Amino acid sequence: MNVFDVMNAVGLVAFAIVGSLKASDADLDLLGIAVLGFLTALGGGITRDVLVGRTPAALSGSGDVLWTFVGVLVALALAVVVDERGLLDSPALLVPDAVGLAAFAATGALVGVSAGVSSFGVVVLATLTGVGGGTISDVLLDRVPFVLTEDFYASCALIGGVLFVLAVDAGVGRRTAALACAGVVFALRLLAVHREWRLPSV
Amino acid sequence: MNVFDVMNAVGLVAFAIVGSLKASDADLDLLGIAVLGFLTALGGGITRDVLVGRTPAALSGSGDVLWTFVGVLVALALAVVVDERGLLDSPALLVPDAVGLAAFAATGALVGVSAGVSSFGVVVLATLTGVGGGTISDVLLDRVPFVLTEDFYASCALIGGVLFVLAVDAGVGRRTAALACAGVVFALRLLAVHREWRLPSV
Amino acid sequence: MNVFDVMNAVGLVAFAIVGSLKASDADLDLLGIAVLGFLTALGGGITRDVLVGRTPAALSGSGDVLWTFVGVLVALALAVVVDERGLLDSPALLVPDAVGLAAFAATGALVGVSAGVSSFGVVVLATLTGVGGGTISDVLLDRVPFVLTEDFYASCALIGGVLFVLAVDAGVGRRTAALACAGVVFALRLLAVHREWRLPSV
Repeated sequence: MNVFDVMNAVGLVAFAIVGSLKASDADLDLLGIAVLGFLTALGGGITRDVLVGRTPAALSGSGDVLWTFVGVLVALALAVVVDERGLLDSPALLVPDAVGLAAFAATGALVGVSAGVSSFGVVVLATLTGVGGGTISDVLLDRVPFVLTEDFYASCALIGGVLFVLAVDAGVGRRTAALACAGVVFALRLLAVHREWRLPSV
Repeated sequence: MNVFDVMNAVGLVAFAIVGSLKASDADLDLLGIAVLGFLTALGGGITRDVLVGRTPAALSGSGDVLWTFVGVLVALALAVVVDERGLLDSPALLVPDAVGLAAFAATGALVGVSAGVSSFGVVVLATLTGVGGGTISDVLLDRVPFVLTEDFYASCALIGGVLFVLAVDAGVGRRTAALACAGVVFALRLLAVHREWRLPSV
Repeated sequence: MNVFDVMNAVGLVAFAIVGSLKASDADLDLLGIAVLGFLTALGGGITRDVLVGRTPAALSGSGDVLWTFVGVLVALALAVVVDERGLLDSPALLVPDAVGLAAFAATGALVGVSAGVSSFGVVVLATLTGVGGGTISDVLLDRVPFVLTEDFYASCALIGGVLFVLAVDAGVGRRTAALACAGVVFALRLLAVHREWRLPSV
């Protein structure tokens, strides 16, 4: 496994844990907990693949499903011993979640550029791959998606996508640009949490 | 018409009735009632077709639309004479609804295996075809989808999908496996209603 | 630019303004305001393109994105000086919004007939292109989509779609039929606002 595969696996486990804990906190049943874990981890990538006309990787036999399953099981184990809300805000989850956001934004940008979409499209797909799963989960939980109201989260993926586009336009290799994108997203997200950055409303 | 076609037609009518009655109960206008009837009946299949890259059958001239239209008209006729809530819980609707869940899960599994998705993908598509329409409707009605919180409904389609995959892997013909899947889903759903099965939450 | 291009541009700006003002009124942050502006303007067309298996025009370099961006900026400028709710109900926004509904319904019908979907499919795609963006935005804002409950809005696009299908079936050229469709949708929508038409509920 290279560094991307590791980041991707960490992200899938973290996103699945977050989704399953949110579901458990909202008193969904076991199936609902599993569904929200899977959708939080895989929903962004599925939406991206549908937009560019690919059969979603999650349905065609990728190992991503296994990592997601691990995350759901970990969440179930955690949910029986500790309080879900506390876990969702704990630093132990924030760092792997930031790894996932970074890995997914970079993957989304790579898929976008391979599919030949516009620069705007690449930025949209980077952001969507990073935050799409959490957005779908929040809609199913009957909430305004947290990425639209709270702090500096989707913005990290968006900035990473813009940097990726600028780097590729400047002649940097796609793979290097994707690594830089992931690094910037990860650093920005940790900074945003640490400094409690928020976007203004109007 | 073979047994599948009959089950599919019964299911479309039943799902359209359920969707339209829910919309009427939520005080949507006539268009909203029709839209929710159509989406409840056809939304699962449309989502499945989009995921495997097919133009949705519902848009390309299948007879499914006619059965759905019948269901919407029946629901409108019912809604003017009786109370919607009572109807939604009545056994007269539960049995055809279980027929629909069974038919749609089997169709979803067949489409999945034809599209060459993974075993996990086949189970997802079977479940999604069965419960996707109701989920979309609940999201539009601004509710947590009932399949994520209430009783033993999506689980029936999921178990049917798993059985289908195991049967096909064991060398059983797809058509026979689909019939077995439909039979199991139908029986499980009726049992679940009768025994008031629920999945635990954590 | 021909008349269609002008109507399309007016509609994109108007829809983006409406989406961004709704987001600002709901206290979303800057990113949420931009996302809802973009989704309200482009979401209907994106959903339509996904359903007929095309890469969404909005991601593959169309000028639509620029007009949408203009709308978001105008909304931000407006939101800092006046109250959002008053603007959303003002006639200054109702007319360009009706232009957009008309342009998008006509475009949706044209895409549908090019993609070879059924007559029912053409009507669905005309309606969806017109109201899909607003529906997605309302779902993200955790509301029942206004097109399902309030007055005579989606119905205008639906009637326009039916007229388009009848005209094309009667041998009228697609382009002429699309212009007639847009004209009817625009007139119906203004009439509906002026006379306060509503669909009945049951």
